Amino acid sequence: MTGRLYGVGLGPGDPDLMTLRAARLIQGAQVVAYPALAGGQSFARSIAADLIPANAREIVMDVPMTVERGPAQAAYDTGAAEIATALDQGHDVVCLCEGDPFFYGSFMYLFARLADRYEVEVVPGVTSVSACAARAGRPLVARNERLTVLPGPLPEAELRDRIDGAEAVAIMKIGRHMSKIRGVFDELGLSDKASYVARVGLEDEVVCPLSEAPETAPYFSMILLNKGDDPWL
Amino acid sequence: MTGRLYGVGLGPGDPDLMTLRAARLIQGAQVVAYPALAGGQSFARSIAADLIPANAREIVMDVPMTVERGPAQAAYDTGAAEIATALDQGHDVVCLCEGDPFFYGSFMYLFARLADRYEVEVVPGVTSVSACAARAGRPLVARNERLTVLPGPLPEAELRDRIDGAEAVAIMKIGRHMSKIRGVFDELGLSDKASYVARVGLEDEVVCPLSEAPETAPYFSMILLNKGDDPWL
Repeated sequence: MTGRLYGVGLGPGDPDLMTLRAARLIQGAQVVAYPALAGGQSFARSIAADLIPANAREIVMDVPMTVERGPAQAAYDTGAAEIATALDQGHDVVCLCEGDPFFYGSFMYLFARLADRYEVEVVPGVTSVSACAARAGRPLVARNERLTVLPGPLPEAELRDRIDGAEAVAIMKIGRHMSKIRGVFDELGLSDKASYVARVGLEDEVVCPLSEAPETAPYFSMILLNKGDDPWL
Repeated sequence: MTGRLYGVGLGPGDPDLMTLRAARLIQGAQVVAYPALAGGQSFARSIAADLIPANAREIVMDVPMTVERGPAQAAYDTGAAEIATALDQGHDVVCLCEGDPFFYGSFMYLFARLADRYEVEVVPGVTSVSACAARAGRPLVARNERLTVLPGPLPEAELRDRIDGAEAVAIMKIGRHMSKIRGVFDELGLSDKASYVARVGLEDEVVCPLSEAPETAPYFSMILLNKGDDPWL
């Protein structure tokens, strides 16, 4: 019997925001797999750490954070091959994924390599967008509003057009793009209404208006804005 | 001591997709509050049913599903007043909310009425967008893609423009707007690539390509499309 592959969303970082299904799958895992930054640290593993059985086998994928896709693709090729071997041996494999697997999640790279050959279940997770809105106390979208999710690395002109045309917007993956994005918000006169949230739910979380945000931002930070006039009233 | 208000996201419907924090808060609740369709049925309550303590007090808000906002606003006014009384009496109140409270969630109407006077914690939940993508086996967005979330009731011309300009799109709240939305996808030549998911995670779930979807859709249904050429490869 071939094993089953689980792509498990862990939520944004606070282990309490894992789903019941995610927790149960991890607690019962024979084999867990997760990405780590080359060198060792794995945010995904740290979220699930208290639930991983002591005797579970761990498949670690060293995924370099480079702009070129080649090195990361090679890491997922290697990881997928190792996972396939475990599945062929009849073991279920629980892949740990920060946030939601199909929302900018790492699991989709394994899914693309394995879903045609193995039974796969994707367990959705709480996204950082939902978590940041909750912590900022700012509803994302109500009624018939549109939500636009934009990655911070997009070119400045495109960001400006998209933010200008949006009703509600979430900018992800801020990191080294902070000053560019902030310039766009300033230019559009939107910085006072926008919220900034960094490392949501973790000990060093920051929540403040964008106009008061620090000049440098971590990769795991977000800017949220709803331009509406409190449509939830 | 005044009580604390919790706005708890329950996820898309499968109780297993509740977060650990949501489950713990509901299990320990003295007072729970939730919206119901006028007449009685509450989807939110049905998701949490197995966890609500037998002796918990239940505040039911009969929210009519009308196009006019007045009747629903009146229901939330009444509900907020009843919740405020419980908080003033020192009881914590756990408000149950389908999906994620701040993503088209009912809780934001209570938040708008109570957050200036009471301590509030919002517990984010798994959205139906994440859950539908997981069940359809279709990644939502990867790398630097944009995601556009659109409510089905938007006018046809606006839907056409937004879908045409999107990279990845999720159409929510399909219901009686199905034939209009399907027409737009057909016109844009996108029906073959789009997925349709109805009542995700429930017993009568439907998952199929949009081109094979039934002619009538429930309110809790969604259309998902990523136009990219498998950017997760």
